[in-house]
Amino acid sequence: MEQMRHEVREQPDVLRALLEKEYPTIRAIAQELRQRDIRHVLMVARGSSGNAATYAKYLFGTANRLPVAMAAPSLYTVYQTPPSLQNTLVVAISQSGASPDIIAVVEDARAQGAPTIAMTNAPDSPLAQAAERVIYLQAGQERAVAATKTYTAELMAVALLSVALNDDARALEQLRRVPEAVARTLEVEESIQRGAERYRYMTGCAVIGRGYNYASALEVALKLKELTYTGATPYSSADFLHGPIAVVEPGFPVLLIAPGGRVLPDLMSLMAELQQREAELLVISDDPQPLEHAQRPIRLPVTVDEWLSPIVAVVPGQLLAYHLAIAKGLDPDKPRGLRKVTQTR
Amino acid sequence: MEQMRHEVREQPDVLRALLEKEYPTIRAIAQELRQRDIRHVLMVARGSSGNAATYAKYLFGTANRLPVAMAAPSLYTVYQTPPSLQNTLVVAISQSGASPDIIAVVEDARAQGAPTIAMTNAPDSPLAQAAERVIYLQAGQERAVAATKTYTAELMAVALLSVALNDDARALEQLRRVPEAVARTLEVEESIQRGAERYRYMTGCAVIGRGYNYASALEVALKLKELTYTGATPYSSADFLHGPIAVVEPGFPVLLIAPGGRVLPDLMSLMAELQQREAELLVISDDPQPLEHAQRPIRLPVTVDEWLSPIVAVVPGQLLAYHLAIAKGLDPDKPRGLRKVTQTR
Repeated sequence: MEQMRHEVREQPDVLRALLEKEYPTIRAIAQELRQRDIRHVLMVARGSSGNAATYAKYLFGTANRLPVAMAAPSLYTVYQTPPSLQNTLVVAISQSGASPDIIAVVEDARAQGAPTIAMTNAPDSPLAQAAERVIYLQAGQERAVAATKTYTAELMAVALLSVALNDDARALEQLRRVPEAVARTLEVEESIQRGAERYRYMTGCAVIGRGYNYASALEVALKLKELTYTGATPYSSADFLHGPIAVVEPGFPVLLIAPGGRVLPDLMSLMAELQQREAELLVISDDPQPLEHAQRPIRLPVTVDEWLSPIVAVVPGQLLAYHLAIAKGLDPDKPRGLRKVTQTR
Repeated sequence: MEQMRHEVREQPDVLRALLEKEYPTIRAIAQELRQRDIRHVLMVARGSSGNAATYAKYLFGTANRLPVAMAAPSLYTVYQTPPSLQNTLVVAISQSGASPDIIAVVEDARAQGAPTIAMTNAPDSPLAQAAERVIYLQAGQERAVAATKTYTAELMAVALLSVALNDDARALEQLRRVPEAVARTLEVEESIQRGAERYRYMTGCAVIGRGYNYASALEVALKLKELTYTGATPYSSADFLHGPIAVVEPGFPVLLIAPGGRVLPDLMSLMAELQQREAELLVISDDPQPLEHAQRPIRLPVTVDEWLSPIVAVVPGQLLAYHLAIAKGLDPDKPRGLRKVTQTR
């Protein structure tokens, strides 16, 4: 079995391990943070970890009422005039903990006295050493170049931190159901495998989500690019309407990540507009409504709370990218010209 | 002449008008803000205005040392749990001032007591009424659907606010040279018109910038999508290396917005990697170095300071999108299925 497929299938176990082994640490971190008058959050990450940071933007915003900014590392590494971080928690996310630009932001934040947390799968990495506190992703080594199990572990780590900051027992219970929901979701693989060939010659597509699942759109588009070399472009449904929708012509493929929840009405009205333009619609959802209108419905077999749905809804997207790579005769473990650790300044 | 081309050519006059007529207002706003202990900025915008907000993220970060977050309107309009905005200046940018989601964020911020500014070309719009203070873009009516003169006016308004917050006379002098630099840059049109046909059958491309000109990459990619229906995807050079570079195969077109400045070495090393992959390189720059390696060099005839280069460097991108639309037999004034005012919640 290819490494990547193996790692996709490991996700329920990784999420269980993370929940069990790291929650005490995360709770202790949250307790410390409560004494530090945190009013803002700065996320530092790139690639898939940057997509997990986007999830944090929505979750810390809604659940913790914290405004979240995404760091622009070039302010530190190139322009060398970093912003002042008063009352700001800095959270860096990196699978490898090795990217110099991410480390530079954390080092500066620490020098400024801001609390810093590294979420990483490499607890001895330079990033882990630079940060005040470390949340270890507990994902085991990830061998495939394309991140899968570390991505969902990052989402879970973000969710655990949010829950711990609020000391919210009910939310923690909801979280505990996620590993099993991911396990059930893996059952969609067979139908995705059967359906992937249809997109063998697709050159570009849009991948759309909104709210919490904007992160899923970003991540699934990235997987499609990395593994299938397809011009897959992610959008929030609202941004898509502000211009990019012009690219849609009959047959243009649009993948909507549209689980049930408060943003679903927006996605439904976008779907109506896309149908008028005769787009090809692929829909990932647990709700029968949007699935009904899709040429290719991908039904999520379990419903989780909306704020947790990105951990589940990304899984069919990972599998789609994987099986499309196979259908195109590509090696999903070794995307051309990518390395596991990307070092950017 | 098409409206859009006319509006592109109006840009020097619009920028001059904005400088002369609005700077006193902007200075007064900056004076008020100095008494309000601003430590963070929240930008609220979509589409082209969202790209101007990205410029603000870099400029307020480097010049004013303020961390900048981009608002996620769905936190307000869909989830209805907006973050708390302590010590935060809220700046909304919208040509029309009519998008309900942008207005909702400003209304909430105002209810929370945060200082709010609307940068808009419609001083009587609902957005202007919602905000505490208004910076009027002075661009005259924009008739073409694709924003051009309002985009550069938004960049200039952001730059003026940054300068006024620092009360920086030297930076103001640099800014005063920009309208003339834009006028000179319009001279590149003829060579862009001649070169556009080469891309008649291009289906996708990457548009890359870093630092201040990440905003330019976002905006030029949006123009290409709106006007030519091309799958143009924007990236920062660092993000591109973290995965998406896998899509590059021989002949794949990459447009680099690479004026001289501190980020240029990063773009040069990316160019070397792209050349190895035999990508087709289009380069917009005032520096001979990156132009030398391009299949299609687009030379900026004037050099402006790096922090102001986005106002100049976007212009050849606007013209490229325009002339490529003409080469494809499309009407640049009426992209299919777009309206001038997009209302999203």
